[in-house]
Amino acid sequence: MSGAPYGFEEQGRRFVLSSPTAMPAASTFLWNRRMLLQLNCRGFATAQFMQPEPAKYAHAPTLEAKTFMQPEQPYYAHHPGRFCYVKDEDDGLLFSAPHEPVRRAPDTFAFSVGTADVAWQVGCAGIEVEMGVSLPVDDVAELWTLRVRNRSGRRRRLSLYPYFPVGYMSWMNQSGEHRADLGGIVCASVTPYQKVEDYFRNRDFKDRTVLLYERAPDAWEANQSAFEGEGGLHAPRAIVGQELLDGGDALYEMPTAVLQYRVELSEDEIREYRFLFAPARDDDDIRALRGRYLSAPGFADAAAGTAAYLDAGAGCLRIETPDPWLDAFANHWLPRQVYYHGDANRLTTDPQTRNYLQDHMGMSFLRPEVARRAFLHALSQQEPSGAMPDGILLAEGAELKYINRIPHTDHCVWLPVCLKTYLDETGDDALLDEVVVDGSGRSASVAARIDDAMRWLLQSRDTRGLSYIAQGDWCDPMNMVGWRGHGVSGWLSLASAYALGLWADIRARHGDADLAAEFRSGADDFNAAMNAHLWDGDWYGRGITDDGIPFGVKSDDEGRIFLNPQSWAMLSGAADPEKRARMLAAVDAQLVSPYGVALNDPPYTGMREDVGRVTQKFPGSAENGAVYNHAAAFYLYSLYQVGDADRAWRVLRAMLPDPDPRDCLQRGQLPVFVPNYYRGACRLHPRTAGRSSQLFNTGTAAWLYRCLVEELFGLRGDGDALRIAPKLPSHWPSARAWRRFRGAEFEVRIERVAGLPRMRVVVDGQALEGDAITGIEAGRHYGVRVELPT
Amino acid sequence: MSGAPYGFEEQGRRFVLSSPTAMPAASTFLWNRRMLLQLNCRGFATAQFMQPEPAKYAHAPTLEAKTFMQPEQPYYAHHPGRFCYVKDEDDGLLFSAPHEPVRRAPDTFAFSVGTADVAWQVGCAGIEVEMGVSLPVDDVAELWTLRVRNRSGRRRRLSLYPYFPVGYMSWMNQSGEHRADLGGIVCASVTPYQKVEDYFRNRDFKDRTVLLYERAPDAWEANQSAFEGEGGLHAPRAIVGQELLDGGDALYEMPTAVLQYRVELSEDEIREYRFLFAPARDDDDIRALRGRYLSAPGFADAAAGTAAYLDAGAGCLRIETPDPWLDAFANHWLPRQVYYHGDANRLTTDPQTRNYLQDHMGMSFLRPEVARRAFLHALSQQEPSGAMPDGILLAEGAELKYINRIPHTDHCVWLPVCLKTYLDETGDDALLDEVVVDGSGRSASVAARIDDAMRWLLQSRDTRGLSYIAQGDWCDPMNMVGWRGHGVSGWLSLASAYALGLWADIRARHGDADLAAEFRSGADDFNAAMNAHLWDGDWYGRGITDDGIPFGVKSDDEGRIFLNPQSWAMLSGAADPEKRARMLAAVDAQLVSPYGVALNDPPYTGMREDVGRVTQKFPGSAENGAVYNHAAAFYLYSLYQVGDADRAWRVLRAMLPDPDPRDCLQRGQLPVFVPNYYRGACRLHPRTAGRSSQLFNTGTAAWLYRCLVEELFGLRGDGDALRIAPKLPSHWPSARAWRRFRGAEFEVRIERVAGLPRMRVVVDGQALEGDAITGIEAGRHYGVRVELPT
Repeated sequence: MSGAPYGFEEQGRRFVLSSPTAMPAASTFLWNRRMLLQLNCRGFATAQFMQPEPAKYAHAPTLEAKTFMQPEQPYYAHHPGRFCYVKDEDDGLLFSAPHEPVRRAPDTFAFSVGTADVAWQVGCAGIEVEMGVSLPVDDVAELWTLRVRNRSGRRRRLSLYPYFPVGYMSWMNQSGEHRADLGGIVCASVTPYQKVEDYFRNRDFKDRTVLLYERAPDAWEANQSAFEGEGGLHAPRAIVGQELLDGGDALYEMPTAVLQYRVELSEDEIREYRFLFAPARDDDDIRALRGRYLSAPGFADAAAGTAAYLDAGAGCLRIETPDPWLDAFANHWLPRQVYYHGDANRLTTDPQTRNYLQDHMGMSFLRPEVARRAFLHALSQQEPSGAMPDGILLAEGAELKYINRIPHTDHCVWLPVCLKTYLDETGDDALLDEVVVDGSGRSASVAARIDDAMRWLLQSRDTRGLSYIAQGDWCDPMNMVGWRGHGVSGWLSLASAYALGLWADIRARHGDADLAAEFRSGADDFNAAMNAHLWDGDWYGRGITDDGIPFGVKSDDEGRIFLNPQSWAMLSGAADPEKRARMLAAVDAQLVSPYGVALNDPPYTGMREDVGRVTQKFPGSAENGAVYNHAAAFYLYSLYQVGDADRAWRVLRAMLPDPDPRDCLQRGQLPVFVPNYYRGACRLHPRTAGRSSQLFNTGTAAWLYRCLVEELFGLRGDGDALRIAPKLPSHWPSARAWRRFRGAEFEVRIERVAGLPRMRVVVDGQALEGDAITGIEAGRHYGVRVELPT
Repeated sequence: MSGAPYGFEEQGRRFVLSSPTAMPAASTFLWNRRMLLQLNCRGFATAQFMQPEPAKYAHAPTLEAKTFMQPEQPYYAHHPGRFCYVKDEDDGLLFSAPHEPVRRAPDTFAFSVGTADVAWQVGCAGIEVEMGVSLPVDDVAELWTLRVRNRSGRRRRLSLYPYFPVGYMSWMNQSGEHRADLGGIVCASVTPYQKVEDYFRNRDFKDRTVLLYERAPDAWEANQSAFEGEGGLHAPRAIVGQELLDGGDALYEMPTAVLQYRVELSEDEIREYRFLFAPARDDDDIRALRGRYLSAPGFADAAAGTAAYLDAGAGCLRIETPDPWLDAFANHWLPRQVYYHGDANRLTTDPQTRNYLQDHMGMSFLRPEVARRAFLHALSQQEPSGAMPDGILLAEGAELKYINRIPHTDHCVWLPVCLKTYLDETGDDALLDEVVVDGSGRSASVAARIDDAMRWLLQSRDTRGLSYIAQGDWCDPMNMVGWRGHGVSGWLSLASAYALGLWADIRARHGDADLAAEFRSGADDFNAAMNAHLWDGDWYGRGITDDGIPFGVKSDDEGRIFLNPQSWAMLSGAADPEKRARMLAAVDAQLVSPYGVALNDPPYTGMREDVGRVTQKFPGSAENGAVYNHAAAFYLYSLYQVGDADRAWRVLRAMLPDPDPRDCLQRGQLPVFVPNYYRGACRLHPRTAGRSSQLFNTGTAAWLYRCLVEELFGLRGDGDALRIAPKLPSHWPSARAWRRFRGAEFEVRIERVAGLPRMRVVVDGQALEGDAITGIEAGRHYGVRVELPT
């Protein structure tokens, strides 16, 4: 990665970007189970916490809509962020760290993203400013450190102004004031409500936003417009025009939190400050936060706690390959993203059922006991019909929101798909016999519930034997294909076939041959129906509308080919080798781009009333022709299933920015998470193709992790064995992996050996018969050598 | 008004402010029946149009909440607005008109607010920029004129950049591009939706925002972030850093509309441009807008149409008094505000019933035929119980929103109050016999329906005989006083008494003595109950909570006294002269401030769980201790009813900013509309006391107009007569008025004559017996001379 203005450090545990302008929207995130903090290199920030629905404590300067997390969210001067202005008291020079709001070009700059913290180092006119933030494990609070160092070779008189904008809190009540007794600026508000019942729901909200300091400032300001004045945020009146901040308050005006420290620094002198920025309920809450954290030992304890928390989700795989960027990503960043999904549940109270199940598919590799509870919890909300609801409620009083109010038909599919991963990883077949009581009071075992779910899929078919789509299925919200009750989904029919096949295998292993046969035959029916009605000559169609019009087919000008049906036809076995070859060629020709594999192509540029919402999304963004990584991950998984390791490698490779700076800059993405999409539409909109959504909520993480563990490194659980089947790309001569599995550790060296007829596995010096290591002893260390043919 | 940096011009038809910083939030508004454009002196703008619910075509740079119009809305750098940058191509000097985004201090500045247009004149470095905007009557479109003149005495090379930010249009789809074929920048979007049924509702939305030019620019930019770059809005990269705009487009990025004109101007040369900024549905719609308006004759026709439209709402009164600010306000601005309320219905599809009725009370003086239709429309939504709903639905598919979903108990009260005004003004007693069919299909006359409404008020009382408050009554959303079904409202009991009394009079005049007696007796009961249970010794209490605790009484530390019960006790007759004197003294001592009369005092500073929402509003703002002008107008009206003309004058006087600049600047309000409130809490928050809400939606306008016509100038209709009873303040020696009434014109001179024992009226040279001019002939001109005792 030499020559690039960024790169991994500390064995891939930190990613450092040395320009504030190269990737202005590139972001990272920190989280704990109660909150989320998304940060970009310029200091803009978006924070949410649960009370119990997602809420904000630093707002835009306008009344914001409550909504789900958006991709490609725009930044602008008054966007919430965390900043520190620095003014030279002698010559008046002004700059700000990280980069906003002043935007002075720094002499040195580093945006250093760690797994447990984020830090900046900004050098300007001989002054070096370091800002850093981390979160504690159990509280909603940001712990900020500010360190200023004089590197100018002469004595300096400076004013430092930590500036934490609070924004428009509430139209009912908002204010801000300095509270010397609490040691900070306290901005208060009342969450607006109109119905009496909402009063009781809101009564205990943390409606205050506080910036607490360890060291008392020389001055402060709590009024945003008094702070800014005519100067604007790049040159605030209260900084440029005067010696000391006014000490103003905000009275139903927009509050803010600005402090001022006047310092004299001799050469190389360092001054360090600690701050806590958080929502709070009342004075007692504020005092408790201060007491717990706002000191050097408090910060150190919090950091130790966070390190321990993250360690618990460090994953089951460590790798060393010829591609160090992959090592960094797979060893540190990807498990972290999987952990966020599985442990914080994307900070929602009603995750979509398909997301919840897939997130916990990923969690099976990190903390299987958490995944187990999640599967049981999800099944406790199964409907009497066997259908799964559109979302799983996680908190008391939660309700289905947004897209979860729209009927989708794919949720049952994910039960066997995700459960199989858990069972493979843990061998915990006892889960199948766990009894789950649902909302109607009915008791049934996990296995019986999944039988019901599979039968619901079998029932929900039209006379052709294809799955009804209702107002949507996974990923492509094509809400008008089947809203009148007739339209069917090709992808869902294939996904049902795959799910039924997986479940038949599990049932067979569990000793239920009759059920296995029933589901196996159902799977065959789905595959046969697809081949009869939606094989389009070179690929599978996406579906058939209410009016009987197939779409995602050659005769379409837009939305001609969709990726998902092709991937899942490989998984379900619908595609024979000849069909598969044609499909792969079609995907290569029409969907593959330098930034990954698009979901569909050509993107829709206008509304098709029989397809719906996806056709109204912007071409190349979101689900309309984007490189939708979740679907790309399915494709990746399916390529591994059919043994196409090199094509798979190309797909995997494109999920992250290339070490080549041009690629990275075009995507605007730090390789510290895999985003839900990159823009597609390479032909239609080449300028924006490849751009990252910056949205880290995505099932991609779980699938990618699964692909790395089970496929690329081929270290998959199977019954009581660990099955060895690495699928390295042909340009790798060797690789190493450390795999935690059923309490044992496997140190695996994989090497290509010329002239070898087939794979050879040696375990602790003993050649292995076949490819399965059995009789695994927890606590034991296994040395495994895998030799692969060239 | 000499010496002030502002003042009325053109006989009060324009108000001119000569500083962009003196009153940064001061605003005015233009409207037609389909749209609303609120503008401030710095160029920030908020526009809404009906499709059919209120929608925006220029947005904040973030996902905005859909909400009702907010008071004291904050401005910030990226707030929507309409601007023009000017760059000197030789020396690089940059400024912008009106003032944002560059904020360079201008050499000359005028913000000139007309009744039908708004204009700016900004002079900077020898260049004079004039910007002006008006709206057509029948379309949603802003018609902008830009005129640039070289006053520098030398040849100048300039670039002009009209900049109309469009903001974050939609998370589903947004884009912007230059369309040479349409002659403008077209920003497209799809209003987000998730439910299929919403697709059909949204299908015909005007989801595009267009900036059309008459004269083709030299360059353009449609991408907000490309335009701004690292420069920021005060120094955009695309202006400061380069000769020509890039001609970029926005692809799911934030769109914008910036044009560039390169001009060379010799001394005193003028260049003029016309633009149209509007939402549009499609290309045809855009072409139609262009064809209709975008030319000098098109602009002129639109202006003529708007002038005619406003003329039709010019009102029934013109005055000439010793206070020219009042003349300007009463002759031009107040009727305009009344007209907006009555003809555009505040641009909502579900006005609160009380607002709708009071707005049309005002409309009775302007266009009584519109008011008549409104009363019939409101009654067609009466409930079978006789109750009026919380809001009146005006459009097909409209539904009750926001506070209209919360049960309030005062709506019936407004029927007689508002109808009486209409009947007095028009003499149209035939309205009472009009048959109205309601939603259940039941037919009943207007009079019978109001009987029912009055009986509903009589029924909705507790055993004490006081009115239940449920979750609120007028103005003070005290949602927890009576939510458990027991709490009562003192104000509403008095208002019911007043309404019943008015209705009894109308019934009596209509020849229904029995009904008159029934309602008269009901009114007496209410008054008696109030005197028995809520007279607190020096004033009337505001109510009694669910738990039987009176509030708005002496023993309260906060919310001790409320204005409304005192005003309405004078109207209802509950207060005898002794009580009245005590009340007035209490109001003077506790509620009167330099900025008007507060709604309650001391404002609540914290929650009282038995009172509710008002106690959670910010002290001194909105309904919590503010100078709430609507309530002040009731007080004003009640003072006139008891003949207290000088006290009334002081209340009226405080409803508008004082000619004294300090007062005007503190309020931050242009005297071109009366705002819904000024901040109160003079003692608690003196810094912000008097500040205007800038919100022009308020029933104040109608009441104030009524007070001017019927009380201050005492020219009230009564049966078939015009009754003469001016209540001039004692410092006026004389005044003149022109009154349109029943098709005749009355030219009235009022003079104080020393030694006169009582008022003397001379009509066309003939002394009038009594105070009523009868036998009025439409089309005739009456000369009236009124002599008042000194």
